[in-house]
Amino acid sequence: MKFVRYSADSDVCQGVLLDSEIKEINGNLFSEWEYTGRVLNVSEVQLLAPLRPNQIIGIGANFVADQRDLPEVLPDIPVFFFKPVSSVIGPDEKIVIPAGTEEVKFESELAVVIGKEAKNLSEDEVLDHVFGYTVGNDVTAPAFFHGDGHWTIGKSFDTFTPLGPVIETELNPFTVNVQARLNGELKQDSPLDLMIIPIKRMISYLSTVMTLKEGDVILTGSPVGAEFVKAGSVIECSIEGIGTLRNSFSEAVRV
Amino acid sequence: MKFVRYSADSDVCQGVLLDSEIKEINGNLFSEWEYTGRVLNVSEVQLLAPLRPNQIIGIGANFVADQRDLPEVLPDIPVFFFKPVSSVIGPDEKIVIPAGTEEVKFESELAVVIGKEAKNLSEDEVLDHVFGYTVGNDVTAPAFFHGDGHWTIGKSFDTFTPLGPVIETELNPFTVNVQARLNGELKQDSPLDLMIIPIKRMISYLSTVMTLKEGDVILTGSPVGAEFVKAGSVIECSIEGIGTLRNSFSEAVRV
Repeated sequence: MKFVRYSADSDVCQGVLLDSEIKEINGNLFSEWEYTGRVLNVSEVQLLAPLRPNQIIGIGANFVADQRDLPEVLPDIPVFFFKPVSSVIGPDEKIVIPAGTEEVKFESELAVVIGKEAKNLSEDEVLDHVFGYTVGNDVTAPAFFHGDGHWTIGKSFDTFTPLGPVIETELNPFTVNVQARLNGELKQDSPLDLMIIPIKRMISYLSTVMTLKEGDVILTGSPVGAEFVKAGSVIECSIEGIGTLRNSFSEAVRV
Repeated sequence: MKFVRYSADSDVCQGVLLDSEIKEINGNLFSEWEYTGRVLNVSEVQLLAPLRPNQIIGIGANFVADQRDLPEVLPDIPVFFFKPVSSVIGPDEKIVIPAGTEEVKFESELAVVIGKEAKNLSEDEVLDHVFGYTVGNDVTAPAFFHGDGHWTIGKSFDTFTPLGPVIETELNPFTVNVQARLNGELKQDSPLDLMIIPIKRMISYLSTVMTLKEGDVILTGSPVGAEFVKAGSVIECSIEGIGTLRNSFSEAVRV
C-alpha cells in the first residue's frame, strides 16, 4: 500500500495512492485510519513529504562499491547522526544551497519509517517494527562540517531532507537498488547488499541505544556516486516500488 | 511564571507553580491556555520533564574556566549536536548507565525553550523568540563516541537528557550561575559570561541554518567541572530562579 501526504485546496491531507488515484484517508497512519470517500487524481494535488517525521536518524558512509570491499569485522560504533525535522521537504520542492557555499552533495537513500515503539530489538524483530519505506535525499554541505568531525551543521539546513514520494508498506527492501540521476544521468545505482551495516543490524543496534518511536525515519546510507552539485541542477532519487523523488537546487536568497 | 508538567492520578497534566501550589492549566503553553480551576500541592504529584521537546540541540565544549581563557576570535562553526527526544526524563527519574560502560558524565546546563518559529534571527531578536528556561543535564557516555569525532551515540541513550523542574519564563539568564552538586559536593558553578559562544549568538547562528520551532530545546553548554560518575551517585543540577533537577544513576538492567 502506498501512503501519500498532499495539499489540495490549501488543506494538508493523507491518502492511499493506487495508480493515478488518491483515496483520501483520515486518522493516524500508524494505528487507526479510515477512508473518507473522497477520491482525487494525483495530477490535481501537490504531493508533500509522505509524513512529518518524529525524528530523523542517518548513518554515515554505509556503502561500498563492490562486495569484495565489505569489511570482515563491522565497526563497534557506526557513525550515526540526526537531521532536524525542520529540514524535511517534499517532491518538487527546491533544495536551497546555503549562503557561504556554492555546492552541496545529494545522497539518495532508502528511508525506513518506524511504525511502533522499539527497544532492544533483535535483528529478527526489526521488520515487525517497520511501517514502510520511502526515498530520502540526505543533502549535505561538507563546507559546514566541523574540523573535529561533527557533521551536524552541514546536514541540518532547511530543505536538506527531501522525502517521498510515497511510503510503500509492502516493499521487500532486500531486492531493490538505490538510484540517483543528476540532470538525467545515472550517478548512483546500488543494491542493498553493498551496505556495510545492513538494515536489520543498524536498527537493532539503534534500538539498544534509544527507544525508537512511530514516525522515526532512518536514512540507511547512500551508495557510492554522490557528487557535488550547484544551483540549477535537478536530482532524481529513486527506488523501484517506491518511486522517484525529484528536486532541483537553488541558491539562497540573500537576507 | 513557572510552568510544570506532572502526573497526578495517572494523568499527565500541566500547571503553573506558585510556591508549593500548582494551578492546573489546559491548552498549549506556547499559544493559548487557561486555568482549569484545579489546584494541587506540589507534594501530591510527580513532576515530569516540563515539556516534551520538539527537538533537542546541544553545543559542545562551550565554557572556559576563566574570562582570560575566552578566545579572541569565535569559531566559524560551533560544535552542535542533536539529542533524541526519547532521551528525556524528568526530576527524580533514574539515569541508566548503558551496558558496555561503567561510568558516564553529568553536564549541568541552562536549557533554552524556544517559543515561536525563528529563522535568520539577529542577536537582538533572539530573546523575543525564547519562551523560557529550564535546567538540563546533558548526560554523556564518551565510551560510545565514534573515533572520528561523532558524538551521536554517546549522547543518545534513553534517560540521558533530564530536564526540569520548571520552565521559568521570567529568568534573566545573564545573572545566574549554572551549578551541579554530585552527592552533595559542588562540582560546577559558573556564570554565563564564561560561555565561549554566548546564548544570543548561538541561537542567532542556529537560526541561520534551521528554522527553530516552538518546543525546541537548546542546551547551552556545561561549565568546567563535569565528572565521570558511577551507579549509585546522585546529581543535582541547579540554576537559581529555576530550581534543582535531581537524578540518581543506576546500572542497566541486563536484557
